[in-house]
Amino acid sequence: MSDILKQLDIILEQRKSENPQESYVASLYAKGTDAILKKIGEEATETLLAVKEGVHSKIIYETADLWFHTLVMLKQQGLDSDDILQELQRRFGTSGLTEKASRDQHD
Amino acid sequence: MSDILKQLDIILEQRKSENPQESYVASLYAKGTDAILKKIGEEATETLLAVKEGVHSKIIYETADLWFHTLVMLKQQGLDSDDILQELQRRFGTSGLTEKASRDQHD
Amino acid sequence: MSDILKQLDIILEQRKSENPQESYVASLYAKGTDAILKKIGEEATETLLAVKEGVHSKIIYETADLWFHTLVMLKQQGLDSDDILQELQRRFGTSGLTEKASRDQHD
Amino acid sequence: MSDILKQLDIILEQRKSENPQESYVASLYAKGTDAILKKIGEEATETLLAVKEGVHSKIIYETADLWFHTLVMLKQQGLDSDDILQELQRRFGTSGLTEKASRDQHD
Repeated sequence: MSDILKQLDIILEQRKSENPQESYVASLYAKGTDAILKKIGEEATETLLAVKEGVHSKIIYETADLWFHTLVMLKQQGLDSDDILQELQRRFGTSGLTEKASRDQHD
Repeated sequence: MSDILKQLDIILEQRKSENPQESYVASLYAKGTDAILKKIGEEATETLLAVKEGVHSKIIYETADLWFHTLVMLKQQGLDSDDILQELQRRFGTSGLTEKASRDQHD
Repeated sequence: MSDILKQLDIILEQRKSENPQESYVASLYAKGTDAILKKIGEEATETLLAVKEGVHSKIIYETADLWFHTLVMLKQQGLDSDDILQELQRRFGTSGLTEKASRDQHD
Repeated sequence: MSDILKQLDIILEQRKSENPQESYVASLYAKGTDAILKKIGEEATETLLAVKEGVHSKIIYETADLWFHTLVMLKQQGLDSDDILQELQRRFGTSGLTEKASRDQHD
């Protein structure tokens, strides 16, 4: 199931050479970084509101929207999902014991 | 690599029975939904600022933080990463016909 | 100059009885709380991006948008600008000395 | 009442010459633009959560926090509350009739 992230990285790369008038992602690339960041801000807000409403299908829908637009941002910045998964692997992969070190970074 | 999301789902489930004073995630669960949502708002803001700064290592770090806190939220709401991946699969799995062969290998 | 906030409170009250198809504010009231909160999330994001761009006219424009939509929210919640000004007066009005107490709430 | 915004502009200007270890605002100036923008992101999120909770005192408290940190941002950018009030006056001051023009900017 998680191979969908790899597939999305490939799809989002292909969108770079597509027509902004025919592809939503290509239109975001054409508008530039701030347009993508506005979408991330919007989707984060909508995720919060979905959680407060408490309906599972909406939480899933909005969180998928948020992740999707971060993937668009990553690709536009020359990164992709693998960079994020590697960072999570670095923090949490070997065991849960690394969580404390991660927590210190947050406090 | 992408199995890290499954590992994280397991780790985040385990945190539900741990001591909030010893685990950052357990402390978020103890504080409740709004504390988790505040973190999502914070990490979304920090992701935006990292992109504007344009340093790859910071973009990766903050996006990983954002994804991580959405995973904490999902688990606290009785969901997990698989729900998001399935939603992305539903939206994008069949599109991008050039990826169909590789997708079939995994189905 | 600051009487504009009082004028806006009156205008925003009047909008409650207007046609959502003819008034932007009335259309926000009709859509409900979450629609107004999404606008606050959007305008906060746009304010951040304007500050990062560093163009004064855009910072002013987006911050005015953010304040405006908080005023719409306040009115929809049965509050108005005076409640916010009174709270700021309570914190900072007598002298700057009260800042330390306020700071403690933030730390 | 609304003179509190003018008073705050003066207080926030004075904070520029104060010790970051003794003044919360001076510490924000010292940390720089991104620290102030993170606070705006945080306070916007907390305002949303307060509205969803529906408790008037919390809505007032968080909205005042949001306005306060936008005032800190404005001052740090060489602007102040008067710039925002003038922009609102320009949009809405003469009559409510200007709302439609403003709405067009939003649509």
